[in-house]
Amino acid sequence: MVQSIKKISILGSTGSIGISTLDICRQHPDRFEVVGLAAGRNIDLLLQQISEFKPKIVSIHSEEDYQNLSSKIPTTTEIVFGSSGTCAVATLSECDLVISAIVGAAGLAPTLAAIEEGKDIGLANKESMVIAGEIMSERAAKNNVKILPVDSEHSAIFQCLNGENVKDVNKIILTASGGPFLHTAPNEFEHITKEQALKHPNWDMGAKITIDSASMMNKGLEVMEAHWLFNMPIEKIDVVVHPQSIIHSMVEFVDASVVAQLGEPDMRVPIAYALSYPRRMTTQVTPLDLTKHRELTFYKPDLEKFKCLKLAFQVASKGKTYAPVLNAANEVAVAAFLQDQIRFIQIPELIDVCLQAHMPISIDSIDTILSADSWARKFVITSIGNIS
Amino acid sequence: MVQSIKKISILGSTGSIGISTLDICRQHPDRFEVVGLAAGRNIDLLLQQISEFKPKIVSIHSEEDYQNLSSKIPTTTEIVFGSSGTCAVATLSECDLVISAIVGAAGLAPTLAAIEEGKDIGLANKESMVIAGEIMSERAAKNNVKILPVDSEHSAIFQCLNGENVKDVNKIILTASGGPFLHTAPNEFEHITKEQALKHPNWDMGAKITIDSASMMNKGLEVMEAHWLFNMPIEKIDVVVHPQSIIHSMVEFVDASVVAQLGEPDMRVPIAYALSYPRRMTTQVTPLDLTKHRELTFYKPDLEKFKCLKLAFQVASKGKTYAPVLNAANEVAVAAFLQDQIRFIQIPELIDVCLQAHMPISIDSIDTILSADSWARKFVITSIGNIS
Repeated sequence: MVQSIKKISILGSTGSIGISTLDICRQHPDRFEVVGLAAGRNIDLLLQQISEFKPKIVSIHSEEDYQNLSSKIPTTTEIVFGSSGTCAVATLSECDLVISAIVGAAGLAPTLAAIEEGKDIGLANKESMVIAGEIMSERAAKNNVKILPVDSEHSAIFQCLNGENVKDVNKIILTASGGPFLHTAPNEFEHITKEQALKHPNWDMGAKITIDSASMMNKGLEVMEAHWLFNMPIEKIDVVVHPQSIIHSMVEFVDASVVAQLGEPDMRVPIAYALSYPRRMTTQVTPLDLTKHRELTFYKPDLEKFKCLKLAFQVASKGKTYAPVLNAANEVAVAAFLQDQIRFIQIPELIDVCLQAHMPISIDSIDTILSADSWARKFVITSIGNIS
Repeated sequence: MVQSIKKISILGSTGSIGISTLDICRQHPDRFEVVGLAAGRNIDLLLQQISEFKPKIVSIHSEEDYQNLSSKIPTTTEIVFGSSGTCAVATLSECDLVISAIVGAAGLAPTLAAIEEGKDIGLANKESMVIAGEIMSERAAKNNVKILPVDSEHSAIFQCLNGENVKDVNKIILTASGGPFLHTAPNEFEHITKEQALKHPNWDMGAKITIDSASMMNKGLEVMEAHWLFNMPIEKIDVVVHPQSIIHSMVEFVDASVVAQLGEPDMRVPIAYALSYPRRMTTQVTPLDLTKHRELTFYKPDLEKFKCLKLAFQVASKGKTYAPVLNAANEVAVAAFLQDQIRFIQIPELIDVCLQAHMPISIDSIDTILSADSWARKFVITSIGNIS
């Protein structure tokens, strides 16, 4: 059987997921053609990517960079910019699969645009599922679009559910590394520095998700993502701390059988699975040798120490516009922490105050979500201004 | 949808697997009807089982017990005896699924008889697959029969392969508890007693399989079973020692992703899965709580200490009549050990001598297998006679 070439667009091509996706495409030129790239501000890397993969269309964040870039790329590549540019990459007619790897709520609009055009989605942008899960799921179903998870935990669950009936699931068990502060005493939390928070023990990722891992907000967002992605009630989603990050997540079935997906921590595995699903393909990732690992250990998460995770569970149960508010408040707080404007422990404090001030309403449209998002951003920025 | 009742026959109903199978059937009277039971010598338990499950047909090992039993059971239950009796239970026309749980090579004939009659098989009798794997697989395919594994390792692999393409498998990883002698020094092996060997750290099983676990021959037989059951070359089957027996086995795929099946060690899970496949059903088994386990650890097996496992790997690669010879020699040696006729370390020694004396031929029929089996039994009995 001759295999048809899958045409791929990558939103966030110069980020960690984007780079790994291109690595996989580079390994399998007979299977994938990169037709679209959308990037932020890393022009040098984007230029290299254009030169290597010769995409049909490329989008860059700012108009200034667009002007700058235009003269440097071949005329066979169309160049666009801004939000509309990202959406143009996401909806390119010949594209089959869009890897959605822009960080934060900014990933929502282009991902939805791709879904409306019937493109399958490799979803690394968990925030879009967190804030607009119901709408994303509905529109994916309506347009017969597959949403293939591209983070290690949800890809693990997706693999564990292979060939199973979702009615037979007892619960989903998300594993969490616990991040760099798993064993930090609660009274030490106020002294946590940016440098400490940016050092993840197992995964090499972008700055925002690394901070989210340190605060365990990342796991909270993943609980919400799993809720929508697998249509699973929140009370059927558990978090277990597993510092070695070898078991990427698990599914417990009604018969007390647990199926887990394991591997060395390497994002190329979930990316490759989204690209090759339902089959698998080689990845050049080091195979797992469990005999080389001293031990695998598991703990209950400490919700008093990791207040972000506690807030996320609360928000997940409450529904309404709480999720976009939590997500936006977190994005602003993390950015402020990365700019040395606030301390680590102020991240959950700012989110908590924002959630308490919020007047929730039911989500009936993307506009409802975006206005809750926008309200929360302003609220937290003001709160930070009052602190300083 | 109204669920039809599945009709079950159990070969070996008074053994460990038989008892657990009846426990599952007892929990789901709306799903299963027990129509046939075949037992060995445990008349008291068989009488209780007849009284509770009211099977259509029952077989007992000896003619004497048959005479004895005939007067004690209701006339609605037909009673038969001996090998032909077991085959009558295995081939009862109304039966849908036969649980094959007789220990040793004796399980082969009735299991094949059931396959020829188109019954699906829940296979706990691994020896039949070890000695006649090729013939079993061929006849199952011809008769459109599903062979559903009923030991924890092969059920784990079977679950991990759910929804996957077997071409994407890199290797199968069978986990082994390592048994009671995992940490015993090699020079202590000559002093191992029957009482020590009968104490398995994690599983409560019959005597023969418990000794096989202590010698790791059980894992060797499982390697051979996996080879035929999943049509997997021997070089793609690995054994990893995992003393906690929480991960029951794993499959590594070409993308370096590993899928594993986990749970508290309880045979009711694989039994229930064979009964309910492809769906799952409740089992009353304690759900796994990984946070209650101190740690999961993994080691390479020591083939110099566990010579039975080494012999099994060698035999598996050689093919021909070596497998039935290894299996028969092991059965005789284990029985002699259980009767205090030989020491623990003499089990692999006797098997090794027997294998070296064997003149292998290609397997073209069940008769070839049975005569190799019979030759090996006589050879080992004579060897034991020479030792004493």
